[in-house]
Amino acid sequence: MKQSALFFKTSKNISKDEKSLNAQLLIRASFIDKLMAGVYTILPLGFRVLKKIEQVIREEMNAIGGQEIFMPTLQPKENWQKTGRWEDLDVLFKTKLSNEKEAALGPTHEEVISPLAKKFVASYKDLPFYLYHIQNKFRNEKRAKSGILRTREFIMKDLYSFHTNEKDLKRYYEKVMEAYGKIFARCGIDKVTYLTYASGGTFSKYSHEYQTLTESGEDLIYVCEKCRVAINREILDDQQNKCPRCGSEDLKEEKAVEVGNIFKLGSKFSDPFKLTYKDKNGTEKPVVMGCYGIGLQRLMGTIVEVLYDEKGIVWPRSVAPFDVHLLELSGDNEKVSQSTQGLYEELKKSGIEVLYDDRKNIAAGEKFADADLIGCPYRIVVSEKTIKNDKFELKKRDEAEEKMLSKEALLKVLK
Amino acid sequence: MKQSALFFKTSKNISKDEKSLNAQLLIRASFIDKLMAGVYTILPLGFRVLKKIEQVIREEMNAIGGQEIFMPTLQPKENWQKTGRWEDLDVLFKTKLSNEKEAALGPTHEEVISPLAKKFVASYKDLPFYLYHIQNKFRNEKRAKSGILRTREFIMKDLYSFHTNEKDLKRYYEKVMEAYGKIFARCGIDKVTYLTYASGGTFSKYSHEYQTLTESGEDLIYVCEKCRVAINREILDDQQNKCPRCGSEDLKEEKAVEVGNIFKLGSKFSDPFKLTYKDKNGTEKPVVMGCYGIGLQRLMGTIVEVLYDEKGIVWPRSVAPFDVHLLELSGDNEKVSQSTQGLYEELKKSGIEVLYDDRKNIAAGEKFADADLIGCPYRIVVSEKTIKNDKFELKKRDEAEEKMLSKEALLKVLK
Repeated sequence: MKQSALFFKTSKNISKDEKSLNAQLLIRASFIDKLMAGVYTILPLGFRVLKKIEQVIREEMNAIGGQEIFMPTLQPKENWQKTGRWEDLDVLFKTKLSNEKEAALGPTHEEVISPLAKKFVASYKDLPFYLYHIQNKFRNEKRAKSGILRTREFIMKDLYSFHTNEKDLKRYYEKVMEAYGKIFARCGIDKVTYLTYASGGTFSKYSHEYQTLTESGEDLIYVCEKCRVAINREILDDQQNKCPRCGSEDLKEEKAVEVGNIFKLGSKFSDPFKLTYKDKNGTEKPVVMGCYGIGLQRLMGTIVEVLYDEKGIVWPRSVAPFDVHLLELSGDNEKVSQSTQGLYEELKKSGIEVLYDDRKNIAAGEKFADADLIGCPYRIVVSEKTIKNDKFELKKRDEAEEKMLSKEALLKVLK
Repeated sequence: MKQSALFFKTSKNISKDEKSLNAQLLIRASFIDKLMAGVYTILPLGFRVLKKIEQVIREEMNAIGGQEIFMPTLQPKENWQKTGRWEDLDVLFKTKLSNEKEAALGPTHEEVISPLAKKFVASYKDLPFYLYHIQNKFRNEKRAKSGILRTREFIMKDLYSFHTNEKDLKRYYEKVMEAYGKIFARCGIDKVTYLTYASGGTFSKYSHEYQTLTESGEDLIYVCEKCRVAINREILDDQQNKCPRCGSEDLKEEKAVEVGNIFKLGSKFSDPFKLTYKDKNGTEKPVVMGCYGIGLQRLMGTIVEVLYDEKGIVWPRSVAPFDVHLLELSGDNEKVSQSTQGLYEELKKSGIEVLYDDRKNIAAGEKFADADLIGCPYRIVVSEKTIKNDKFELKKRDEAEEKMLSKEALLKVLK
């Protein structure tokens, strides 16, 4: 799209109360705007990133048989009382319905999906199935901090699986692990993201988190580089400071942020909602459940925390707002302008997403600075210098060198 | 997808407290599930419809220059006090933040987008622009009724436009009218949907609603068939019972449901937030705003209210959960099964969305009843009878006659 029409305004500095790197860069580059503590609006540039992250997640969920639904935010108090979480969960937002009844604003959806599943399950023949949704969550955090890594309202993908027994849950749990690996790889953070053993609760020895190394992370993890896994500090003692896979004590302490988690729930939520099935012998048994979450804004913020330099964000192409930032440095040269517009149309025709900086009366330095800050993976410059040789100047955001390329060579690189 | 894997369970009857036609059909056919009064979960079949409606709306919004963003549900009390709506708006849901401050759950987003725009607007050069989002809204309705036509929580597309003056607002307002016309046409309800003159508030003589004729509608409108417009009862007296276009008094009273509305806001929201711009002479002036809404579940419910018969829903192809419902009536005949699977793969390859009823031990009658209830636009039957002649039986949901077609002829019809 043409940058002159884009709703954005980059800035060099922002309010000092925003201390986290991700929020600083994302606000300065016009990806997000802060409405109040822990609550952000996603602006057009950020929306494009968020939609791409969502699509990556959706594709991987569908690939493992997930069926997408959409559950409500407003949830009846009775359901939360049944699981004991109406009083116990301190981050639970509450509100009043017009009939003076109370309702929760969903921070997660076990209290909705378990009674929903009950309506659809009678026999072992109805199992297994896998339902997920991508939906706004509400958590009344005492201290909303770390930019969009920890907020009061955020979009989450939560997947729930329903099984006849633990063995089948384990089979699917491992499939989800694979899918999560693919998601973080596609989002460009796999090299610094570790499958992390964490506390499993009552049902299972471990749960698993995906932790990404970053200075702004709130968690401490202990990494076994050999196995590419980590242990959350909360279970380090139980684990006798050893890698749960190879037993090595050569663990490195790192700060990290949790970008995903997967949980074997067992019958923790089936029991209060009497979610059962009849097995082959007609015996009634509890449905065995798993749950699997990824916060979308947190993932977006984590990508920024990992992929940036002193000039701005360095998006991986898979989730970049645009593939290419095309800068027209025309001065008043009509030929430069025409050449840029021609290239813009041609790139679009080839299915390449282009942000075309067509703004007049903006200094070249400012255009370069904006391009670096916004962080599209490729920058193309068209100027008097480039058109003289019938070439275009291409630079990758994460490389220092520019290249002068013909249009054909350019299209080949970008395809 | 294969129906044996689909999360669904059709039923002949549902709870009697669900009186509205749309909810009855949508629940019976497994498109939605009721969580509590006025709050519904969207199930896999319904989700596919909702996503298609969303995409139709998104395309038409983008075509008129709309830029998509995502604003929060949680909104600061101060903003709502500024506009006087914290106390005045009786449907406003409220909640408490952990610091004991109060927040609103957004029923609409003028209180967020006006201060947001203020950060981006300085001069007339920054105008006009058009922002929209597709996001969950909360309205604490006294009586949530009419199924998904009036709920406490629903996804809404709300577009906001920002202008230097009323003339420019009018220009864009008319573009939105055109876009809305296209949306309702693409959703198959244009023949019974009327641009309706309604009360305009303080700034403008009229606002405009889009009203769709249906028995379950809560509004009364007066239709001028010649002009294809209507008047809402609320302004009938002011209007002296005459069509605002041709002056005719030949108006027909109809029940209708509002599927969209468009509003000239003027400076109603710019003023409290001091949203101004400097004109060419440096004079500070209020930004002139418009707002334009469509509720997605309401649109989905309205389509059902309009397009159904005694057997179930009759989706228009544009928003149908699948293009084709493919029924395998194999008994134990392996050849029938193979032929159906072959066709299923071929249809998918041609980009046609197919729900393949591969269920074993289900009577043909039940498969037919499910297909009619779910309401995909085309039904294909494969049975011993059809494969004997190397043909397939095709029936359109809204036609009585079946046709026997070769695979080639079939693909041609469905393309």
